[in-house]
Amino acid sequence: MSEAGFQWKPIGSVRSPFQSTQEIPKGLGAKHEAAGFLEILPEMETGLTDIEGFSHLIVLWVFDRSEGYSLVGTPPSDNRPHGVFATRSPRRPNPIGLTVVELIARDGRMLRVCGIDMLDGTPILDIKPYLSNIPPERLRRGWLAEAEERAGAKR
Amino acid sequence: MSEAGFQWKPIGSVRSPFQSTQEIPKGLGAKHEAAGFLEILPEMETGLTDIEGFSHLIVLWVFDRSEGYSLVGTPPSDNRPHGVFATRSPRRPNPIGLTVVELIARDGRMLRVCGIDMLDGTPILDIKPYLSNIPPERLRRGWLAEAEERAGAKR
Repeated sequence: MSEAGFQWKPIGSVRSPFQSTQEIPKGLGAKHEAAGFLEILPEMETGLTDIEGFSHLIVLWVFDRSEGYSLVGTPPSDNRPHGVFATRSPRRPNPIGLTVVELIARDGRMLRVCGIDMLDGTPILDIKPYLSNIPPERLRRGWLAEAEERAGAKR
Repeated sequence: MSEAGFQWKPIGSVRSPFQSTQEIPKGLGAKHEAAGFLEILPEMETGLTDIEGFSHLIVLWVFDRSEGYSLVGTPPSDNRPHGVFATRSPRRPNPIGLTVVELIARDGRMLRVCGIDMLDGTPILDIKPYLSNIPPERLRRGWLAEAEERAGAKR
């Protein structure tokens, strides 16, 4: 393991309706249905070949307007604190965000997508095809399920 | 967007039965059922608080033994080339891997997990709780579904 760490560069950026974090739906039952674009750099466009066949994409991106990190914090979906690795908090040791978006259409290096929860201009690190689900009967959702139950927001 | 890029440091590393990439199951129908550990650094352990409640975790990690990248390549699951962002190839512009593992048990800063497909010693960048699935009736899997069909390996 290199002590120097790893360095990465964006492959593109997000075109989003959200200019500030306050505009992004958060908390229990928040829906991420905003449409936007993933704008990929011209020199990376060839990497998009055949991406049209996938309905959903995993986007890895940088919380570039978040500073520092907390190992424990209270998320918008609960009133109790939890460890950062048990939440989607932006204040992470490595500020990498993950969003699953629905691919609506591709126009060259512009991917029109639905399900955006990133700020406008967010740097994109990687895109991967969404391939499979966890069997629902095997999925447990810890504190989030408990918070939903307390809030009466059963799904 | 910073021209200098972003730099990250591992929060821990993977304890895996796989010492070389040849040992990792690949291609159509490959099952990732190997057990192993996510060993988190002592100074990050507090970030694991309440993680026990989640059955599945998303692990982001570094393809630290992969060099360079190809925008197009032929994956082990097909005999046709595809764009890197439509595959899980290790030879990515930003060599970040993503694996969904099942959390079996936690012992302090050691997470015993199932579903390992990383090499032993792989640096871990982040862990996030797996929260929800894409509705199966809305999921399309592009070239992978086509390759499975051609191979008669229907799922």
